[in-house]
Amino acid sequence: MTQTTVAAYASPAPSAPLERTTIPRRALGEHDILIDIKFAGICHSDIHQVNADWGVGTYPMVPGHEIAGVVAEVGTGVTKYAVGDRVGVGCFVDSCRECDNCRAGQEQYCTSGMIGTYNSQGKDGRPTYGGYSTHIVVDENYALRIPEGLGLDVAAPLLCAGITTYSPLAHWQVGPGKKVAIVGLGGLGHMGVKIAHALGAEVTVLSQTLNKREDGLRLGADHYFATSDPATFEQLAGTFDLIVNTVSADLDLNAYLGLLRTDGTLVQVGAPEQPMPVSPFALIGQRKSLAGSMIGGIRETQEMLDFCAEHGIGADIEVIEATAINEAYARVLKSDVRYRFVIDVATI
Amino acid sequence: MTQTTVAAYASPAPSAPLERTTIPRRALGEHDILIDIKFAGICHSDIHQVNADWGVGTYPMVPGHEIAGVVAEVGTGVTKYAVGDRVGVGCFVDSCRECDNCRAGQEQYCTSGMIGTYNSQGKDGRPTYGGYSTHIVVDENYALRIPEGLGLDVAAPLLCAGITTYSPLAHWQVGPGKKVAIVGLGGLGHMGVKIAHALGAEVTVLSQTLNKREDGLRLGADHYFATSDPATFEQLAGTFDLIVNTVSADLDLNAYLGLLRTDGTLVQVGAPEQPMPVSPFALIGQRKSLAGSMIGGIRETQEMLDFCAEHGIGADIEVIEATAINEAYARVLKSDVRYRFVIDVATI
Repeated sequence: MTQTTVAAYASPAPSAPLERTTIPRRALGEHDILIDIKFAGICHSDIHQVNADWGVGTYPMVPGHEIAGVVAEVGTGVTKYAVGDRVGVGCFVDSCRECDNCRAGQEQYCTSGMIGTYNSQGKDGRPTYGGYSTHIVVDENYALRIPEGLGLDVAAPLLCAGITTYSPLAHWQVGPGKKVAIVGLGGLGHMGVKIAHALGAEVTVLSQTLNKREDGLRLGADHYFATSDPATFEQLAGTFDLIVNTVSADLDLNAYLGLLRTDGTLVQVGAPEQPMPVSPFALIGQRKSLAGSMIGGIRETQEMLDFCAEHGIGADIEVIEATAINEAYARVLKSDVRYRFVIDVATI
Repeated sequence: MTQTTVAAYASPAPSAPLERTTIPRRALGEHDILIDIKFAGICHSDIHQVNADWGVGTYPMVPGHEIAGVVAEVGTGVTKYAVGDRVGVGCFVDSCRECDNCRAGQEQYCTSGMIGTYNSQGKDGRPTYGGYSTHIVVDENYALRIPEGLGLDVAAPLLCAGITTYSPLAHWQVGPGKKVAIVGLGGLGHMGVKIAHALGAEVTVLSQTLNKREDGLRLGADHYFATSDPATFEQLAGTFDLIVNTVSADLDLNAYLGLLRTDGTLVQVGAPEQPMPVSPFALIGQRKSLAGSMIGGIRETQEMLDFCAEHGIGADIEVIEATAINEAYARVLKSDVRYRFVIDVATI
């Protein structure tokens, strides 16, 4: 296969609506696979990237890092995948492969910087384009196997929302006997609840209101509290071993730190744009930690997919046609989605 | 022994200079020991307490939670100590003894709140008075044994400065192959350097200037950098497994977080009065943590004292007469002490 041109949805300029266009995909290298994309999830961070909220963006920008599809072609040296295999691609498509973190299978923390699935620059010096597109070419070492039994549509969001919550839950050893709170019941939060529950923890949702309480309990939460009620912070003081904060809006973290027990950790997986004021006394008094966590490595992402398949966990999704992407973005900003939009790529 | 009156130095009102006075010490209970105090260290937090910087204070206030002395009398049920034993008292003199943390030997994190050695309320409902005093009565379970070979004068500061730095170094498993930075070379910092070095770590001091560089290297540091030089933050980016911040002034923590490697932790042991602005990106990008740690439990404090004796570690001290306490406070505020003032209690 030589370089090809494929259909995609792209934002032509910062904050501009996405529109149909075509983009190049590179010729298949020795270790590359060509994926016929079937579904692509819409992540809140896609909107941040399109709006260049986190720095300069490269346009046209084709978002999408929750990709599920089928292998359509393989390079001459590919050993891990065969045509017809069900595969996924997450937030990165390459890394230096040489630093301590890459060697340890933590490519997301590559000290040279991972190569993002989109809005990044590939090793060939050309921009990377994401999953809102009919096809993608990716090195076999940066693809994931989607186990049988997991629908490609509900699997797509696992590649970001799933691993973003699975990784801290696994790293901080959540399991039976542990009390975990998930802050925010959105795309990330609803996966956090499902996974923490499947890991055997006692799970509490901390949401602004009780509006989604029934959903939360159905997804696996044992308890559900409204953070708009000050009594919540009194009642739950000193309760949790781990709090995973999926909310990227500004919260009073000191109030949430008060909900941790001794040696507890509050992990940020959402990223507010502004610095967060943290009281030293909120940490020192009970040896608490405030930490951050970012997606997961390839090995851990595969582990997460296998875990989800074993426990019958997919995302709760609303499948949309490509023409509805901009409308979906508007609804994501209003938190009006339960719980992830997934683009049916056949409609691109 | 019935209740006695003993000599002490006390601050009669918030921010008032300390003056000689007398205070009551309780009658010896079944498990109490009476300690003939020989030396009491001056901790920066004594000044914060006298000034009521951290909340309401009880006056007259007798500071002092770095206490070393000799057992002068024992209660009828005492089994751990005998008259003549060399003992110490640290930052707390009691706790609930029933919560998970007390049972685990982490009395400093007692969920009912430990009973501070001074400016606290004892179980008898009366105020506690600290070590700037000729005698103290304390339950044998909240005293420490000072090993032979450690001078009581250089041992006194171990009861706060020593354990405050030892505990996070031990908890975050500092040892050979680990790179540790100590921020600030004051009373806490100089103990942190000695202990981290004795634990086998590669130790870097991060100090505002290079003024104390020779001292730092003598104390056991392998490297010494000035934080007033922006090049320090470039050169050391991504270096440390653990940073122990002993400075209670406001620092730009995000700059220091940048010095951590993946999975590294920045531990606050000093406590700035204002909330610290923390950028979420400084944590998320490499799964870093910002944590706090407060002194240590009785078991761990004994472990620290034994470790220090084994490695010949005491504090670097300047012994003063009691009449010089107020002058010493002024010098502490100017960081003009290498590295701990210790009151010769015979002069009270």
